[in-house]
Amino acid sequence: MEFTVNQIARMLGGEVMGSGDDKINMLAKIQDAKKGQIAFLSNPKYEQFIYGTDATAVIVKKDFVPRKDVRATLIKVEDPYVSFTTLLEEYHKMISFQKTGTEEPCYAGKNTTIGENVYRGAFSYIGNDVTIGNNVKIYPHAYVGDNVTIGDNTILHSGVRIYSDTRIGRNCVVHSGTVIGSDGFGFAPQEDGTYKTIPQLGRVIVEDNVAIGANTVIDCATFSGDATLIRTGVKLDNLIQVAHNVEIGKNTVIAAQTGISGSTKVGENCMLAGQVGIAGHLVIANNTSLGAQAGVSKSITKEGQRLLGYPVFDIKEYFRSYAVFKKLPDISYRLKELEEKVNSLGNHS
Amino acid sequence: MEFTVNQIARMLGGEVMGSGDDKINMLAKIQDAKKGQIAFLSNPKYEQFIYGTDATAVIVKKDFVPRKDVRATLIKVEDPYVSFTTLLEEYHKMISFQKTGTEEPCYAGKNTTIGENVYRGAFSYIGNDVTIGNNVKIYPHAYVGDNVTIGDNTILHSGVRIYSDTRIGRNCVVHSGTVIGSDGFGFAPQEDGTYKTIPQLGRVIVEDNVAIGANTVIDCATFSGDATLIRTGVKLDNLIQVAHNVEIGKNTVIAAQTGISGSTKVGENCMLAGQVGIAGHLVIANNTSLGAQAGVSKSITKEGQRLLGYPVFDIKEYFRSYAVFKKLPDISYRLKELEEKVNSLGNHS
Amino acid sequence: MEFTVNQIARMLGGEVMGSGDDKINMLAKIQDAKKGQIAFLSNPKYEQFIYGTDATAVIVKKDFVPRKDVRATLIKVEDPYVSFTTLLEEYHKMISFQKTGTEEPCYAGKNTTIGENVYRGAFSYIGNDVTIGNNVKIYPHAYVGDNVTIGDNTILHSGVRIYSDTRIGRNCVVHSGTVIGSDGFGFAPQEDGTYKTIPQLGRVIVEDNVAIGANTVIDCATFSGDATLIRTGVKLDNLIQVAHNVEIGKNTVIAAQTGISGSTKVGENCMLAGQVGIAGHLVIANNTSLGAQAGVSKSITKEGQRLLGYPVFDIKEYFRSYAVFKKLPDISYRLKELEEKVNSLGNHS
Repeated sequence: MEFTVNQIARMLGGEVMGSGDDKINMLAKIQDAKKGQIAFLSNPKYEQFIYGTDATAVIVKKDFVPRKDVRATLIKVEDPYVSFTTLLEEYHKMISFQKTGTEEPCYAGKNTTIGENVYRGAFSYIGNDVTIGNNVKIYPHAYVGDNVTIGDNTILHSGVRIYSDTRIGRNCVVHSGTVIGSDGFGFAPQEDGTYKTIPQLGRVIVEDNVAIGANTVIDCATFSGDATLIRTGVKLDNLIQVAHNVEIGKNTVIAAQTGISGSTKVGENCMLAGQVGIAGHLVIANNTSLGAQAGVSKSITKEGQRLLGYPVFDIKEYFRSYAVFKKLPDISYRLKELEEKVNSLGNHS
Repeated sequence: MEFTVNQIARMLGGEVMGSGDDKINMLAKIQDAKKGQIAFLSNPKYEQFIYGTDATAVIVKKDFVPRKDVRATLIKVEDPYVSFTTLLEEYHKMISFQKTGTEEPCYAGKNTTIGENVYRGAFSYIGNDVTIGNNVKIYPHAYVGDNVTIGDNTILHSGVRIYSDTRIGRNCVVHSGTVIGSDGFGFAPQEDGTYKTIPQLGRVIVEDNVAIGANTVIDCATFSGDATLIRTGVKLDNLIQVAHNVEIGKNTVIAAQTGISGSTKVGENCMLAGQVGIAGHLVIANNTSLGAQAGVSKSITKEGQRLLGYPVFDIKEYFRSYAVFKKLPDISYRLKELEEKVNSLGNHS
Repeated sequence: MEFTVNQIARMLGGEVMGSGDDKINMLAKIQDAKKGQIAFLSNPKYEQFIYGTDATAVIVKKDFVPRKDVRATLIKVEDPYVSFTTLLEEYHKMISFQKTGTEEPCYAGKNTTIGENVYRGAFSYIGNDVTIGNNVKIYPHAYVGDNVTIGDNTILHSGVRIYSDTRIGRNCVVHSGTVIGSDGFGFAPQEDGTYKTIPQLGRVIVEDNVAIGANTVIDCATFSGDATLIRTGVKLDNLIQVAHNVEIGKNTVIAAQTGISGSTKVGENCMLAGQVGIAGHLVIANNTSLGAQAGVSKSITKEGQRLLGYPVFDIKEYFRSYAVFKKLPDISYRLKELEEKVNSLGNHS
C-alpha cells in the first residue's frame, strides 16, 4: 500500500511539481501531515500550513503559486478537494477489501450462491437460498437470513443481522450490530387491553452505495410485497431507528440516534441531525434540513427548509423565540408591573 | 401454508358468501389485496375498495350488504377487525415456528434441559443450568447465559443476549441484538473523584406474551433477589433503554428510543411514544400517554392523562403554549412598545 | 463465596462487635437484608432499620452507639459507605472472574498473545496480531479485530465488537452488543449530490477502569495516528453514541442514549444525564452537569455549571422560564388585553 507521487498524480490527472519518485503511504490533514503522507490545500485560510508541512506531497489548485518556499512536492489539479476525496475513496476501498477467503467454522445453508473473492469470517452464518455477490465481505458473527440478496462489493461487519428476504445493493457498508429486516412494531389492540401481533410480512430493500453505521435498526414492511426502502447513496449513522414501511430518499444523510416512525417518506438530499424524531405517515420534502433533537409531527411540503424545535419551525425563528424564552421570567414580571401601572393609570384618569 | 376460504371461515366462526373452495395464501390490506389473498372491511370509509378488489376473500360484518357487485367471496363475522387480527396472529405463529432442529456447530453447557420441537441455530450458545421450553426458537448467534429459563413458544432472534439468571416467559419474541440482564449503571462516588462499581446482583424477569424489538437493552436489578420486571403483554420497540429495577406494567406499549431510568415503575396500559425519557425512582400511573420526546421528571399520579413537553404537562396545553412560543419575539416587542407607551402616558398624565 | 464476619472486618480494617464467626454470603440494603447478609448504616435517617434488621452483620461508623438492642453483629469502621463500596467492588470482582478456560469452538488468528487465566467463550473471535492481558474474560460471540490490545482484568461480554487497532486498558468492562472502533460518519459531498466515503483510519483508545454499557457505539478517529479517547475511570451507560475523534475526560459519567458528535472534547468529572445531545467540535468544561435531554450547541467554558434546555443554559433558570412557558397562553391574552386598555387610555387622555 505504497505509491509514488507520480502514480497518484496519474490517478488524479494532475501535474507534478517536484520529486515524483517519493513514496506515499498515508493521507493526512495539511496541519498534521508527516513524511510519507499526502495532504491537500483547497481553502486559502489553510495556506500558511503548506509552508511548514512535513508532508511528502500536497494536492493544490492548478493556479496555486507559493508565496514562500515549499518543501513538499505539489500535485496540481482542477479541484484539490475533489481529488483528495477521490484518493480517500480509493484508499478506503483498498483497505476495506483486504480480507478474503473463508475462516472456519462458518455456516452456509442450501441453494446458496456465493460470488468470487468473498470473505467469510469465522462464525458467519448464511441461510438458505441466499445470493452473495462478488467481493462481498462477511465478517465474523454476521448473520444473513434465508432468501437474502447481497450485491457486489458490499461489506457486512461483525455481528450484522440481516433478516430473511432482505435485498442489499452494491457497494454498501453495514457496521457492526446493525439489524436489517426485524419485525415492525405492529400490534392490534383488543377490547381486553391486550394486543395481538400483526405479522410483519414485508421486507427491506437497501439500494446501492448506502452506508449504515453501527447498532442501527431498519424494520421490515408490514404487508407482503411492500418494502422499507433505503434509496441509493443514503448515509445512516449509528443507533438510528427506521420503522416499517419508511422510505428514505436518495443521498439523504441521517446522524446518530435519529428515529423515523412507520410509513414516513423522507425526501432526497435531506440532512437530519442527531436525535431527531419524525412521526409516522408523514412526507418530508427534498433538501429538508432538520436540526438536532428536532421533532416533526406534520408533513413538510416546502423543499429546502432548515427547521428546529418540537414541533419544528424555521431554525432562525426558533432561536429568536428561544432567546425570549430564556427571558420569560423577566417578561412575566414586566407584564405584571405594567398591568399594575396601567390599572393605576386607569384609576387616575 | 395455503387454506381454503371454508377452512378460514370455520376458524373464525364465520359464514361464507360465495365460493368456499378458493385457495388463500396471504393476508393483505383491502386497497392492495390480490388474487389468493384475504382482506377485511371494518371501517365504512374503506367500503369503496371492496367493489374493485382482486382479493379472493374479504372478511365483513355480519350485517354488511354490498351496494354493488363484489367479485370476492365474503366471510361474515361479528367483528371483522377482531377476526382479521386473529387470522394475523395465527399466520404470525405459523410463519414464526417453521424452523426446527439443531444446526451445527452450536453450544450447550451442563445440566441444561431443552424442550421439544426446539430450533437451535448454528453458533447459538446455551450456558449451564438453563431450561428451554417447548417450541422455543433460538436463532444463530443467540446467547443464553447460565441459569436462564425460557418459556414455551418463545423466539430469540439472531444475536439476542440473555445474561445469567434471567427468566423469560411463554410466547415472547425478542429481536436481534437486544440485550437482557446487563449490569445496571451503578457506581459509588469516591472522594478522589473516581467511582467504584456496585455489583449488579439482581436479574430480569420478562413475563408472558411480551414482544421486544431489536437492539433494546434491559438492565438487571441491583440487589440479589430483586428483578427488573417486564409484565405480561408488554410491547417494546427497538433501541429502548430499560434501566435497573424498572417495572413496566402489563400491556404497556413503548415506542423506539425511549429510555426509562432506574427504579421507575410504569403502570399498566400506558402508551409511550418514541424518544421519551423518564427519570429514576418515579411512578407513572396506569393509562398514561406520553407524546414523542416527552421528558418526565416527577411521578404521574393521575391516570389516563396525555402529556408532552419537558417536564411534561397536558398535551393540549403544551401545544397552546408552544403556539405562543413561536410568537415570542413579537410578544417581547409588543411588551416593550407597550411599556414605552405606558411610560409616556404616565408622564403625560 | 462465603466469608466470616471476622474475615470481612479484617479486609475493611474494622472492629467487630458481636459474633465474628457468623457466615456472610451476600450484600444487601439495610431495609431488605436477611440472614447471611451484610448491610451498612451511614445516613442517620436509616438508623431505624438497624433495630429490626435480620442482617447477620451491619457496617457502622466507629462512634455509632445503638439506642436499642441490635441483633446483628456490628463492624465499626471510619466510613461505612466507603467500606461498603470497597466490599461491593471486591464482591463484583469475585463474581466477575469466575469463568476461565476455553470453550470450543473458538477462533484465534496469527501472532496472537494471550495472557494467563483468560476465559474464551465458545464462538469468540480473536483476529491477528492481538494481545490479550491476564485474567481477561472474552464471552461467547465477542469479536476482537486485528491488532487490538486488551489490558489485564478486562471483561468483554457476549457479542462485544472491537474493530481493528483498538486499545483497551486494564480493569475495563464492556457490555453486550457494544461496538468500539466502527467507522466515523464522514462523507465528502460531491457536486452531483452524492457523497464519497472518507476512510476512517484512526482508532479508539479506552484507558483503564472504564465501564461501558450495552449496545453503545464508539467510532474510531478519522485520520491515522488520531484516536477517539475514553479516559481513565469513565463510565458510559447503554445505547450511547460517541462519534469520531471525541475525547471524554477522566471520571466522567454519561447516562443512557446520550450522543456526542465528532471531535467534541468532554472534560473531567462531568455528569451527563440521559438522552443528552452535544454538537461537534465543542469543548465541555470539567465538572459540567447536563440535565436529561439537554442539547449543547456551543462550547461550555465555565466549570461546574448545571445546565438544561436546547440550547442549554442554567438549569434553575430553565425551570423558571419553563414555568412561564406553561402560562404563555395566559400571558398572550393578558398582553392583548393590556394593549387594548392602553389604547383606550391613550384615546381618552
